[in-house]
Amino acid sequence: MERIRKNIQAMSGYVPGEQPRDPDVIKLNTNENPYPASPSVRAAVTAFPLERLAKYPDPECREICSLLAHRHGVNENQILVGNGSDEILALCVRAFVERDEPVGYFDPSYSLYPVLARIEEVRVKPVALAPGFQWSMPDEYEAALFYLTYPNAPTGIAYDQSLIRSFCARFRGVVLIDEAYVDFSDKNCMDLISEFDHVLVARTLSKSYSLAGIRLGYVIGPADLIEALYKVKDSYNVSMLTQVIGLAALRDEAHMRTNVGRVVSTRKRMIGELRKRGFEVTDSQTNFLWVRPPRIAASALFLLLKARKIYVRYFPGPVTGDYLRISIGTDEQMDVLLRTLDERCAVK
Amino acid sequence: MERIRKNIQAMSGYVPGEQPRDPDVIKLNTNENPYPASPSVRAAVTAFPLERLAKYPDPECREICSLLAHRHGVNENQILVGNGSDEILALCVRAFVERDEPVGYFDPSYSLYPVLARIEEVRVKPVALAPGFQWSMPDEYEAALFYLTYPNAPTGIAYDQSLIRSFCARFRGVVLIDEAYVDFSDKNCMDLISEFDHVLVARTLSKSYSLAGIRLGYVIGPADLIEALYKVKDSYNVSMLTQVIGLAALRDEAHMRTNVGRVVSTRKRMIGELRKRGFEVTDSQTNFLWVRPPRIAASALFLLLKARKIYVRYFPGPVTGDYLRISIGTDEQMDVLLRTLDERCAVK
Repeated sequence: MERIRKNIQAMSGYVPGEQPRDPDVIKLNTNENPYPASPSVRAAVTAFPLERLAKYPDPECREICSLLAHRHGVNENQILVGNGSDEILALCVRAFVERDEPVGYFDPSYSLYPVLARIEEVRVKPVALAPGFQWSMPDEYEAALFYLTYPNAPTGIAYDQSLIRSFCARFRGVVLIDEAYVDFSDKNCMDLISEFDHVLVARTLSKSYSLAGIRLGYVIGPADLIEALYKVKDSYNVSMLTQVIGLAALRDEAHMRTNVGRVVSTRKRMIGELRKRGFEVTDSQTNFLWVRPPRIAASALFLLLKARKIYVRYFPGPVTGDYLRISIGTDEQMDVLLRTLDERCAVK
Repeated sequence: MERIRKNIQAMSGYVPGEQPRDPDVIKLNTNENPYPASPSVRAAVTAFPLERLAKYPDPECREICSLLAHRHGVNENQILVGNGSDEILALCVRAFVERDEPVGYFDPSYSLYPVLARIEEVRVKPVALAPGFQWSMPDEYEAALFYLTYPNAPTGIAYDQSLIRSFCARFRGVVLIDEAYVDFSDKNCMDLISEFDHVLVARTLSKSYSLAGIRLGYVIGPADLIEALYKVKDSYNVSMLTQVIGLAALRDEAHMRTNVGRVVSTRKRMIGELRKRGFEVTDSQTNFLWVRPPRIAASALFLLLKARKIYVRYFPGPVTGDYLRISIGTDEQMDVLLRTLDERCAVK
């Protein structure tokens, strides 16, 4: 054991949501999109000459960067494509945080952030959200890097944009706005890129584009910060087929918008249905709901649903332990969930 | 610039070999396999239901681990699959090297190693090879991690296995044996896994399996060291299609062996042809040649060939600057190279 870094020996790795092999499971635990990606993905894969896989992929994903630069009105050197946005989040600690500097994020938000800080052996400086999981930021708060999840996970809440802008205007470290769920939201923070020289926005194709399986995320921001991320990434970080599929999906933005519309519509219905049953439900701007069940502990409901092959996510702990995070599935899956709650779980 | 870590500001990123878009280029610069992967890759991709890409991939690549455990006679918890073996090399620094400990490797070997150390801000302690790029190791040499490339790149030389075994027997840090090219070699070091509790062996599907484009590597070793690597990797580090394709390719080991046989046969012929022309050529156990051209500077020949759309690799510097690394292509590509050397470059 002496050969393993003490810091790594002592830590626990990040535990992702369960990926059951049983196809009968209704999987509402990792915020995947219930609708398939654009049909142009199939066309792109079919047309791709597989013998090309003998060669290395483009280390800079130039075709994707070119499309994104056009879409977001930035230069290509302001974009880095990652092996999922998780890779991008990890690169940020390595590129922007000195060993004696802290990393910040809201509590609760994405539970990966403290793990990333821990791996690099830097301090964390979490900011507790206000009651109701609302924005709260001490006036003098500083850190080398702040992960700002917009909309927030696991709560689904999109903070008031003027609060974010004010924070960026006075915070001196790097702000990484993690917009993994932003396509399900009314607003986004991409405008802040042009206003500030220390703000980055990260996105992913995992949720709105229905492509969690390919691992593709990207980050946009000032060229000097992007250049630093390039230095610390693995050279060939994004596989060739991921680039081909990602490009095809990004080109069919309309298909993504249609899928998002269906999810948002189901979300609206589910918020009503669950509130009718006594659940406390936050105003979600994402593809999941953050709910506090009535008359039953969240942990107990989690296990009851799991026994009935409905997987949702439970985060133990004082701040999150009374809640469940439920991904929005198809209307049929949601009906099964509601029936199960009504008939079996006696939460009506 | 103050927001970027000083260490990262000061460093240069790793520069991979050029990936030209021009299809007319004879690409002998990044050691790709000139023959396509198993036809079962096509079958696996065609049979794969692309709508599954909406879900996350298996974070642990269990099907691949199961196959590899069987093939190499180890337990599944002794294997980690990575986004290319480059990811695995990077994870080793993070898992095994304290901030005040050094990382070792031979000079010359894979030029990525010092970059990985630099990113994590740990010292490097390179070991200069003996004349002729032969094994050389000071008796008292210690480091937290030693990258041992077998066979070595860019020299193509496979060290005497008894030297490696003796080194492992007395070295106290972790030994990562990087066997990226080992399928082109007569011998490999996998046996050392069962002899020592501090030795890991990394392999890749990029070269022998003709799949550089998918990014798949793996590492085998003691369960406690593998567990530490799991803690520091990104959760979903290997895309779903990479897992599907990698599994199909690994199952068709015979196809890989056939391709390797062709490359090895061409290698033998090329060593003879180049020596006949006055080139100094090491005894390669890989899919590339390490050559010192006669009557012309290596850098000049590199540029001459590039102007004729034949890309090879040149590593500037006192130890490597007199040599070129030339990947073994098809026999037809090699004939073009030889004709170009004879007719245009006047090195005959």
